Amino acid sequence: MLGKMMAQQLTIGSAIDHAERYHAATEVVGIETNGTKTKSNWRSVAKRARQLGSALTKAGLNKGDRIATIAWNNLRHLEIYFGSSSAGYVCHTINPRLFPAQLEYIVTHAKDRILFVDETFAPIVANLADKLTVLDRIVIMAPKTDALAELLPRAEFYEDFIATGDSNFTWPNFEENHASSLCYTSGTTGNPKGVAYTHRSTILHSMALMAADAMAISAKESVLTVVPMFHVNAWGIPYAAAMSGCKLLLPGPKLDGESLLTLINEEQATFAAGVPTIWGGLLQALTANKPENLSLKRTVVGGAACPPSMMDTFRKGFGVEVIHAWGMTETSPLGVINQLKNAQLSLSEDEQNQIRVSQGRPPFGVQLRLLDDEGAEIKTGSGGTGILQIKGHWIVQRYFNAENDATEDGWFDTGDIAAMDQDGFITILDRSKDLIKSGGEWISSVELENIAIAHPEVMDAAAIAVPHPKWDERPIILVKLVEGASPSEADILSIYRDKIANWQIPDRAIFVDEIPRNATGKIVKNQLREKFGSVSLDP
Amino acid sequence: MLGKMMAQQLTIGSAIDHAERYHAATEVVGIETNGTKTKSNWRSVAKRARQLGSALTKAGLNKGDRIATIAWNNLRHLEIYFGSSSAGYVCHTINPRLFPAQLEYIVTHAKDRILFVDETFAPIVANLADKLTVLDRIVIMAPKTDALAELLPRAEFYEDFIATGDSNFTWPNFEENHASSLCYTSGTTGNPKGVAYTHRSTILHSMALMAADAMAISAKESVLTVVPMFHVNAWGIPYAAAMSGCKLLLPGPKLDGESLLTLINEEQATFAAGVPTIWGGLLQALTANKPENLSLKRTVVGGAACPPSMMDTFRKGFGVEVIHAWGMTETSPLGVINQLKNAQLSLSEDEQNQIRVSQGRPPFGVQLRLLDDEGAEIKTGSGGTGILQIKGHWIVQRYFNAENDATEDGWFDTGDIAAMDQDGFITILDRSKDLIKSGGEWISSVELENIAIAHPEVMDAAAIAVPHPKWDERPIILVKLVEGASPSEADILSIYRDKIANWQIPDRAIFVDEIPRNATGKIVKNQLREKFGSVSLDP
Repeated sequence: MLGKMMAQQLTIGSAIDHAERYHAATEVVGIETNGTKTKSNWRSVAKRARQLGSALTKAGLNKGDRIATIAWNNLRHLEIYFGSSSAGYVCHTINPRLFPAQLEYIVTHAKDRILFVDETFAPIVANLADKLTVLDRIVIMAPKTDALAELLPRAEFYEDFIATGDSNFTWPNFEENHASSLCYTSGTTGNPKGVAYTHRSTILHSMALMAADAMAISAKESVLTVVPMFHVNAWGIPYAAAMSGCKLLLPGPKLDGESLLTLINEEQATFAAGVPTIWGGLLQALTANKPENLSLKRTVVGGAACPPSMMDTFRKGFGVEVIHAWGMTETSPLGVINQLKNAQLSLSEDEQNQIRVSQGRPPFGVQLRLLDDEGAEIKTGSGGTGILQIKGHWIVQRYFNAENDATEDGWFDTGDIAAMDQDGFITILDRSKDLIKSGGEWISSVELENIAIAHPEVMDAAAIAVPHPKWDERPIILVKLVEGASPSEADILSIYRDKIANWQIPDRAIFVDEIPRNATGKIVKNQLREKFGSVSLDP
Repeated sequence: MLGKMMAQQLTIGSAIDHAERYHAATEVVGIETNGTKTKSNWRSVAKRARQLGSALTKAGLNKGDRIATIAWNNLRHLEIYFGSSSAGYVCHTINPRLFPAQLEYIVTHAKDRILFVDETFAPIVANLADKLTVLDRIVIMAPKTDALAELLPRAEFYEDFIATGDSNFTWPNFEENHASSLCYTSGTTGNPKGVAYTHRSTILHSMALMAADAMAISAKESVLTVVPMFHVNAWGIPYAAAMSGCKLLLPGPKLDGESLLTLINEEQATFAAGVPTIWGGLLQALTANKPENLSLKRTVVGGAACPPSMMDTFRKGFGVEVIHAWGMTETSPLGVINQLKNAQLSLSEDEQNQIRVSQGRPPFGVQLRLLDDEGAEIKTGSGGTGILQIKGHWIVQRYFNAENDATEDGWFDTGDIAAMDQDGFITILDRSKDLIKSGGEWISSVELENIAIAHPEVMDAAAIAVPHPKWDERPIILVKLVEGASPSEADILSIYRDKIANWQIPDRAIFVDEIPRNATGKIVKNQLREKFGSVSLDP
């Protein structure tokens, strides 16, 4: 027996419509690439999104065609997010930090028809221009200048393009399982793979973000989206922002601590989301400026494990709650988020902080399981660790134009090694390929790195395995020091004493100038293994 | 182009599965009908729900068959909620305060196959037993006693029934648009009409409830559901509770202020939801007991407009935030909820309280419009008032076994007169049929009632229209006094001076012993109009 409720599709168009109807006057603030701050609001964002949707439609695109962006977090990027998806096209965000060959691969593989590019990245596109043959048009997201016109002769300019559209355009109707956006993983090996999100998966994911126990994005908040809009749709925050009608801050290109702190103070940001490396800069600015009455109350940290020392400093030094989260491009990204349960609120602060270090627990809509080496499910709360698999409304089934990647019984294999406690809190121990196996026991490279980074003389660190005739593998730690520091190798190794079991302590600490990281900030361990994989294990 | 995300159905089974997997140990506390407090948890609720689902299936029901309940908020009722819907049947909750003829009508119209009934209501069912011929079985939700067996000879007992099921039962797969539950409106006129919610509408509604800007139901909370489970699925809170994994308190039959306060204190309730009449009793208990460190922080009030005086006392006297909300059986019920916006947080407390008196603004998923007498849409923020229409994912399209009730262009007509400010906040002025029209201008009966109820000598009040040769209609106010009070009619009428325009002040105040209210606490104005509609307008 079917129910008798209204049949409506879950679409991104309905998200921006909601913001326009009930949050028209609420501010949306963007920093332009040239540093100018523009104060807009949801009324204007919605109107310009409709105008852009109309312009795209007049440009002769077909439903489902891909619209690429290479852009910072700014107002035009936001208009493209809503305008392209709501008009029936697929918003394909591209990470500008990719190697040129990867960028060419992605544009070609996605068969992008229009590319919107910020001024900053116009030179990258100019260098590749004759290889990006699939593109009908290139649109520069900046006012027209002679220099830009010369750099990219075939390009148009955003305001000219949008002017061809009608701001009274109404979104077409379509089914909620149509693709809304596309994002390629920037794996540390192999070609990038695309994840084609749907309108339905995006809206359900955004509703999950708005829950009090997830990001609690609401109209009460002034939300600073530091996580890039080219990185898993800025974790879905732009959609949740429209659906909740929050004040939204798009920080543009300058993500140094001082610039972020200025924006936080000026626009009274209450909530911010970003990766640990960016928060390191913000912490430095906070320490230097010691602002009174800091408006920022909460921050979600994801993308990489947040060193516990950083969580501590935010909380104790500045009253900012740090909420750990974990996800992947393939998971939209919300997989787990760390929010305490009612029964845990009566624990001591130390016990609570112990729980907060884990990545968190799944929201409704996501299921997790851990598999052991034989593929058997590990019982929740047994203390066992295993490969993390995930299932849910916003988890990828199959990569774009690729074979099925879910397991036979419908789970996505994350490639991460994790542990789950009896309350469903997950701790990500390592990528399965980065895990160090010594004497039959696993050692978490993430844990070794966290301990090193917590030391005031260590700027960055990476742990890798080195083959060993007796133990199979032994860990070493590669360390980038803060400027001016000069500890000895023994000094660094002594950090580990009493923090982990003796057999888990790295055999060596080796000083390096830089820890190589990929376009999304993940350590490229392949490179390190190549360079240091046969180093002597005797200090 | 379709996206490539996992295809999963939004089902109530997945809600209770989530609670079992990730919130197994979290407490669910129920007060039995005999007053005993039972401490259960989500593991046990889920297990027993599966066992019940299995027992129903073994009883030979067909998918979509209706399972009726006449019951308090208690653990067995919660098991029936999840067990019946997840197993593919329709959970039909019946309001025990209905007249016997209406109850018979509803059971027959719904073609209920099994009726689960609490001990308290067994006599009602016994009296009707030979008329409830559609029922295959009656199951009493209490331990077996000779008295009950004698009262209802054909009845079985809950624990015997559930014992026939298998707690390892797995939920069948079905499509999310299948009906999950059924609730009849207790209109003040005509036969009740049924609303058949779907799994999809229920889950989307619950996700909306969990948003920080709606009820913010989360695993941090200890949630007291005073709103009855026979009243629009307790506003959807049981589902949101499972999906968020909160601690859940089901108060059973005793809803007086002292009983509720005891439960709040014992189980450290942080959030409660209910109707104004119940909160009046709680306020009295709070005033009498003056508890220190009250755990209760927030309460959502709906079902009828909450008198501003009550909101004030909760906030200022006891630090409890009162959140106004509005909805109907036809709207699942969340239509609007009152949460301030970022820009409103810098207003003065008085200005904020002014906003808080309105019913609130729609969450994502709900759209509202106001129509004037000619059926034209009233512009948002114009200050105009009109008939409120509503549309959305959890709004009824058509009553159960009835003709289409949505408008031609797909909206549901609420029958309420409302105003909408420029920020999208709705104030419900009246039922359109209760509105008083004097000299061509509307007078809100709700406003006249609120002003009267705010007076310390007034217990309850109802405003109705009386025909008038010159002004068409004039308002009168019917007043039930608190015990021992003896104001004059002129005293009561003087309350209105300086609060509303002179022409809006009622012509008469008439003292009555009781204000008649229907099964859901709404004033039965028909009765009052019949009795007082031709009273003299000269005091």
